[in-house]
Amino acid sequence: MFKNSIRQINRQSCHLHRHARIGRRYAHAPAAFDWKDPLGSNNLFTEEELAISETAEAYCQERMLPRVLEAYRNEEYDKTILEEMGELGLLGATIKGYECAGVSSVASGLITRAVERVDSGYRSGMSVQSSLVMGGIEEFGSEELKQKFLPGLAKGKILGCFGLTEPNHGSDPGSMETTAKPHPSKKGYYSISGAKTWITNSPIADVMLVWAKLQETGKIRGFVIDRSQCPPGAIETPPLKNKNGLRASITGMIQLDECPVPQEHMFPDVEGLKGPFSCLNSARFGIAWGTMGALEDCIARAREYALERRQFKNNPIAKYQLVQKKLSDATTDAAYGILAAAQVGRLKDEGKAAPEMISMIKRQNCDRALINARILQEIFGGNAVSDEYHIGRHVANLFVTQTYEGQSDIHSLILGRAITGIQAFV
Amino acid sequence: MFKNSIRQINRQSCHLHRHARIGRRYAHAPAAFDWKDPLGSNNLFTEEELAISETAEAYCQERMLPRVLEAYRNEEYDKTILEEMGELGLLGATIKGYECAGVSSVASGLITRAVERVDSGYRSGMSVQSSLVMGGIEEFGSEELKQKFLPGLAKGKILGCFGLTEPNHGSDPGSMETTAKPHPSKKGYYSISGAKTWITNSPIADVMLVWAKLQETGKIRGFVIDRSQCPPGAIETPPLKNKNGLRASITGMIQLDECPVPQEHMFPDVEGLKGPFSCLNSARFGIAWGTMGALEDCIARAREYALERRQFKNNPIAKYQLVQKKLSDATTDAAYGILAAAQVGRLKDEGKAAPEMISMIKRQNCDRALINARILQEIFGGNAVSDEYHIGRHVANLFVTQTYEGQSDIHSLILGRAITGIQAFV
Amino acid sequence: MFKNSIRQINRQSCHLHRHARIGRRYAHAPAAFDWKDPLGSNNLFTEEELAISETAEAYCQERMLPRVLEAYRNEEYDKTILEEMGELGLLGATIKGYECAGVSSVASGLITRAVERVDSGYRSGMSVQSSLVMGGIEEFGSEELKQKFLPGLAKGKILGCFGLTEPNHGSDPGSMETTAKPHPSKKGYYSISGAKTWITNSPIADVMLVWAKLQETGKIRGFVIDRSQCPPGAIETPPLKNKNGLRASITGMIQLDECPVPQEHMFPDVEGLKGPFSCLNSARFGIAWGTMGALEDCIARAREYALERRQFKNNPIAKYQLVQKKLSDATTDAAYGILAAAQVGRLKDEGKAAPEMISMIKRQNCDRALINARILQEIFGGNAVSDEYHIGRHVANLFVTQTYEGQSDIHSLILGRAITGIQAFV
Amino acid sequence: MFKNSIRQINRQSCHLHRHARIGRRYAHAPAAFDWKDPLGSNNLFTEEELAISETAEAYCQERMLPRVLEAYRNEEYDKTILEEMGELGLLGATIKGYECAGVSSVASGLITRAVERVDSGYRSGMSVQSSLVMGGIEEFGSEELKQKFLPGLAKGKILGCFGLTEPNHGSDPGSMETTAKPHPSKKGYYSISGAKTWITNSPIADVMLVWAKLQETGKIRGFVIDRSQCPPGAIETPPLKNKNGLRASITGMIQLDECPVPQEHMFPDVEGLKGPFSCLNSARFGIAWGTMGALEDCIARAREYALERRQFKNNPIAKYQLVQKKLSDATTDAAYGILAAAQVGRLKDEGKAAPEMISMIKRQNCDRALINARILQEIFGGNAVSDEYHIGRHVANLFVTQTYEGQSDIHSLILGRAITGIQAFV
Repeated sequence: MFKNSIRQINRQSCHLHRHARIGRRYAHAPAAFDWKDPLGSNNLFTEEELAISETAEAYCQERMLPRVLEAYRNEEYDKTILEEMGELGLLGATIKGYECAGVSSVASGLITRAVERVDSGYRSGMSVQSSLVMGGIEEFGSEELKQKFLPGLAKGKILGCFGLTEPNHGSDPGSMETTAKPHPSKKGYYSISGAKTWITNSPIADVMLVWAKLQETGKIRGFVIDRSQCPPGAIETPPLKNKNGLRASITGMIQLDECPVPQEHMFPDVEGLKGPFSCLNSARFGIAWGTMGALEDCIARAREYALERRQFKNNPIAKYQLVQKKLSDATTDAAYGILAAAQVGRLKDEGKAAPEMISMIKRQNCDRALINARILQEIFGGNAVSDEYHIGRHVANLFVTQTYEGQSDIHSLILGRAITGIQAFV
Repeated sequence: MFKNSIRQINRQSCHLHRHARIGRRYAHAPAAFDWKDPLGSNNLFTEEELAISETAEAYCQERMLPRVLEAYRNEEYDKTILEEMGELGLLGATIKGYECAGVSSVASGLITRAVERVDSGYRSGMSVQSSLVMGGIEEFGSEELKQKFLPGLAKGKILGCFGLTEPNHGSDPGSMETTAKPHPSKKGYYSISGAKTWITNSPIADVMLVWAKLQETGKIRGFVIDRSQCPPGAIETPPLKNKNGLRASITGMIQLDECPVPQEHMFPDVEGLKGPFSCLNSARFGIAWGTMGALEDCIARAREYALERRQFKNNPIAKYQLVQKKLSDATTDAAYGILAAAQVGRLKDEGKAAPEMISMIKRQNCDRALINARILQEIFGGNAVSDEYHIGRHVANLFVTQTYEGQSDIHSLILGRAITGIQAFV
Repeated sequence: MFKNSIRQINRQSCHLHRHARIGRRYAHAPAAFDWKDPLGSNNLFTEEELAISETAEAYCQERMLPRVLEAYRNEEYDKTILEEMGELGLLGATIKGYECAGVSSVASGLITRAVERVDSGYRSGMSVQSSLVMGGIEEFGSEELKQKFLPGLAKGKILGCFGLTEPNHGSDPGSMETTAKPHPSKKGYYSISGAKTWITNSPIADVMLVWAKLQETGKIRGFVIDRSQCPPGAIETPPLKNKNGLRASITGMIQLDECPVPQEHMFPDVEGLKGPFSCLNSARFGIAWGTMGALEDCIARAREYALERRQFKNNPIAKYQLVQKKLSDATTDAAYGILAAAQVGRLKDEGKAAPEMISMIKRQNCDRALINARILQEIFGGNAVSDEYHIGRHVANLFVTQTYEGQSDIHSLILGRAITGIQAFV
Repeated sequence: MFKNSIRQINRQSCHLHRHARIGRRYAHAPAAFDWKDPLGSNNLFTEEELAISETAEAYCQERMLPRVLEAYRNEEYDKTILEEMGELGLLGATIKGYECAGVSSVASGLITRAVERVDSGYRSGMSVQSSLVMGGIEEFGSEELKQKFLPGLAKGKILGCFGLTEPNHGSDPGSMETTAKPHPSKKGYYSISGAKTWITNSPIADVMLVWAKLQETGKIRGFVIDRSQCPPGAIETPPLKNKNGLRASITGMIQLDECPVPQEHMFPDVEGLKGPFSCLNSARFGIAWGTMGALEDCIARAREYALERRQFKNNPIAKYQLVQKKLSDATTDAAYGILAAAQVGRLKDEGKAAPEMISMIKRQNCDRALINARILQEIFGGNAVSDEYHIGRHVANLFVTQTYEGQSDIHSLILGRAITGIQAFV
């Protein structure tokens, strides 16, 4: 079914393109209105991007969707999902080389949208692997680190997690307390101690990209910790259970107790918050795409329910003005959100995407996805309480996306600072 | 601790009142602003109402609250809660006689608020028992039915449920398909067949108040079904699991297959939707109070979190304008909602509460509780995802309260009809 | 028509009350739903309050309404309105003695509602006279000042204005720059210099209550300036024209250039912001009532338009769900707002109304009146642009009410401070 | 100053393009965040589009802006504005030939944005001339009609208006009552009778494009009426005064009393609502751009005010979180709105813009412009009431744009129909 990896799609269409770049570049859509793509965003995507999207969508609908209800109910995460995604080339897809697909940012956004159309938790699992861990190693790691870890991560054979947030420092990571100092007994090693929390995938991760303050300088540095090389007790990753959202994504802490890490596992050149913020930037870009997928799924499900559900004289409730307005509002926000994400994707590949642009689309797309999902949920009436309609799960998930990787208000102040030149974080 | 049932409080203070009605009627509050009662609603309550409220609040905080997290996680309902409430006189509290407390509607509202401050599911369980089942029997049942069932229901020894909603007729119960006809073999009995869904407490109920169309007349009639008297297979009450809200309340179907019911278990004089709508009216009145309790709990928890949580230069996040505005908005809506519920309570006891008034306060208080709870949830940032902060549970519950017993939009059309004289249900 | 001043109504019903207080206290309303009083607030008012309300409503509808369109178009204010109100006893109505009516705070709220049902500008004109000037003199003035000014103000023979806000200090009056110092040449006089802006009625006022910092102490003090006693050039009150709201209320500056004011015209005992804040508090209480009147007028007009306007198959647009929802929402907020204002009115007369309560109802009622008026305006479609439908005028006015006497956000921070104990004005 | 018409710019850059199309197509923007173009939309525009935009912006800021306050205060419209726009080639700019500029739809959108940045009324005046009248004649007129009228209209020497809406048929033009029948006395002429209302420019128009039902067929047809050729009394165009928005745009009725119109002035091939709806479609596309200009002006003015206005310890109010959030929200919506308008512009030129897409962007951009303008208005506090801050004018104008050419709710039902396949206009 999914024999063709998008690596191949991409290679093939690159080849195609050499001969037919002009005039064939954009796929053609009809003039008719399509509620699934109301503002014709497909016209903005290249043929290879559309092909990648189709591959990802087919995989997600056929292989992920059947697993999600049980996973969510039981707070379980099936690690083989990342392996399957790795086989298809969906992990770290924008990275060139190291057995990664090397696709455009827009293509990676389309993958993200496909995954989150099923579940934000599955997308979170992928974002951590792709944007935070692989993206971080690719951007800041030494060549050795890249060669050592990226191919395994790309295939989903190695699982990564990203340790930045601490229990007392959510919106303000600059105040972190985790520290790295020269290891007292192991030469050529650092010793890292501290605690990270709300870490997606930590309980099952093989590799942790952990940010800690280097004692000598007080500056934040990044470290790649290979769990298999750590002595017993140096690292614990207890899960955080009983979440009321993102339950198909496993979350935990990272507790480091004088954990020894080889010096060459420290990112060589990046200091301060620049490193983690750059990783988060990529992840946020993905969230801006992903949440639109979740919203689109809510729209499709609400539309279908409204057409099937009949009340009062056997009318489908889709006939009611109050229902139609909800669908119109949501569809509009989804269409606008995709255009904005596509625009920033193009700018990103041209080196023109300012971080505040990503704050803007992360914030707005999360906010609008959440607001509209909640309103669409009303269409289901009492039935919404049953998890089999999926909408309640999306609503609960989307609230979490609004709070993580920069809560909505925090991004509004980041934007406010960019607009006014004055910071208001107090 | 809770030795004094509110039955006694009421009797004592009725006595007191005879001597000291004028000048002692209203408890005195200081002029200072109290964020827990911002518009001084306590001034509107009599001393016995305040005493009843205190009893209920103490019970709920001390006995219910410690059970709710596990109940919610596991979708379990502890039946002894209703027994405990029965001991305290909290069930069917407005009914006079039949071992009920006979308190004012406002007092019953205050009880409801206390319960839903802990959990909307617990309040749902109580509402069904008190307003729907006991209220229905009290208003429409024969004297025999009242004497047979009300005392046991009041003590929580008998559990009731209320069967109106059918799978295909949520907002439009007039189209129900459940039918009662003379029993083909048992003389003096009706035979009832049909299915009811989203029935709170049905899997554990001893007694069902079921609404069915009488075949001879086509008119809706009410029947009290005593499960212990039904032959095997005549009644099934499978639970509905995997809910994403109200998980501390047990929900199920009622499947009736030629279930025999004695003729004298049919409500003698009420026909059509008047019967169930009158019961729902009482329940909705309780929801208008209850959701304010849930919202007040969200406010208290968000306020406490905001005062303890520190970010950026060690400031409590309560110092941030964006946080303060959320607290101000929510506090205002809670204060307004209580005043409106109290006003309708007083009118109810004077026989002046039109059903549309109850539509109005049910709708508005549910809507505002939900909207504000969601906004307060943002204050918790990423931590909101942990069920130990309780806010996520309230948010999930409050969405359900908005959809049941008249979804918000339906109530807006009921009000619209009352305002314009034109119905717009299509 | 309006021969009976409310002074008489009040005296008569006080008399009545001596004989029939118990059992006759509250007027009786039927159980039917009345869209004009959806939650039966009339049940909360005494018979004399209802009679006062009727008098005020009749006057406003019959005498004010016919003047408002031209006044608004031309930014004119007809001073005889205040005289007429004075004749009816509507000015300074809560004051006891000094030829004032001495009614309850609720009665004064009902008067305010009647006036603002016509126009917020007319209400502003009255608020300044009643709450700010008369209220200030009554609360803080010497007995001489009271006897000198209150009777004339009560009859509308003398016009007052209230000078607090300065050009650069809107939300923060504590930073005012207007100064009073001993007059260099006139013994027993202060000399006041400074500028006040956005002063309702200043161009036509005979008397100004001006707040200035006493040079010797740096403390804010209140001064009653009698324009007729000032030398030429000492006081200028240029109008501020071309407003886009409150155009039926005249607004201007107060420019004081070494204006001599007799020492006995300084309020004897009040220092700092306590004085002006207390006056503003009364005015804000009135705004909370008044804006509900404006909203109720929008509801009545939108309802009427929706019943008359026909579109698509000759249906009145009142039949459309989207229209009904707008009416339902607005009606609900108006009903809730009146209850809250009535509650604070009762507490005020009992000495239990904390200033934050008034912040809460001023803010909420202004916000909800504005939001709903805007939404109701949509019902009028393109016709809304014509001033003859009145709704556009209300919308423009209500925006101003939201910004003056404490902009909505400022009140949210006042509430936030009361809730959290932390101030966030920065 | 404005010697170079955009006709020349366009011709020059077309020339340029022949040599340098590939690789030079898109202007380059820096990676930094620019609050005036937050998502880098300028990257989507060609160099000639940017040049056209600059010309239009310069004209509007330098020549229109100084006139707008007086025009708005006095409800006057300076006809020379259309002449000046005609000189610059801004009228009917997308039309090829007939002395029109022949620019892209995006370029015409940028012109519209520049005009509405000053005032929605000025933009309305231009939209009528360009989209409704010139667009209608160009699409449906005979070659003779085009040659007779388009060049004069393009230069602003002839003024046009568009008569569709009737007093009783706002949202439902299909029910129009204006009729055309063979003229009883003038051979080769039709006789048209009926009344149109809310017609922008009608009092000053030389030419009216009027839609009427042909008596013989009952089908709606379009007629170009040349006022100079009509006998006295056949046509009256009384102005509609005392508007509370769009006051810089003149509005009136068209009253036709057996007005004779030559048969060759009837559009030959278009019947029914297809004709007027196609014209409206173009106008709506322009509104979607224009309202973003108005919103951007509100943002710029609110930002400037917030940076200059100081309160509490001399802080600029731009430092307050509540102010920053307003700016962030508005800026985001403006950025999203421009991307959506640009996308539909590109699709329009490719023949792929479904009418529902235009419904979507017209509705959303009007709604978001209005909502955000209102919120930004709060930043100005009490000063907002002065028309010199311009924001109140934008707010009042934007409300009208939300109601005309398809009120927001109507467009939501058009979208709802496209999404569900069911119409809900009742």
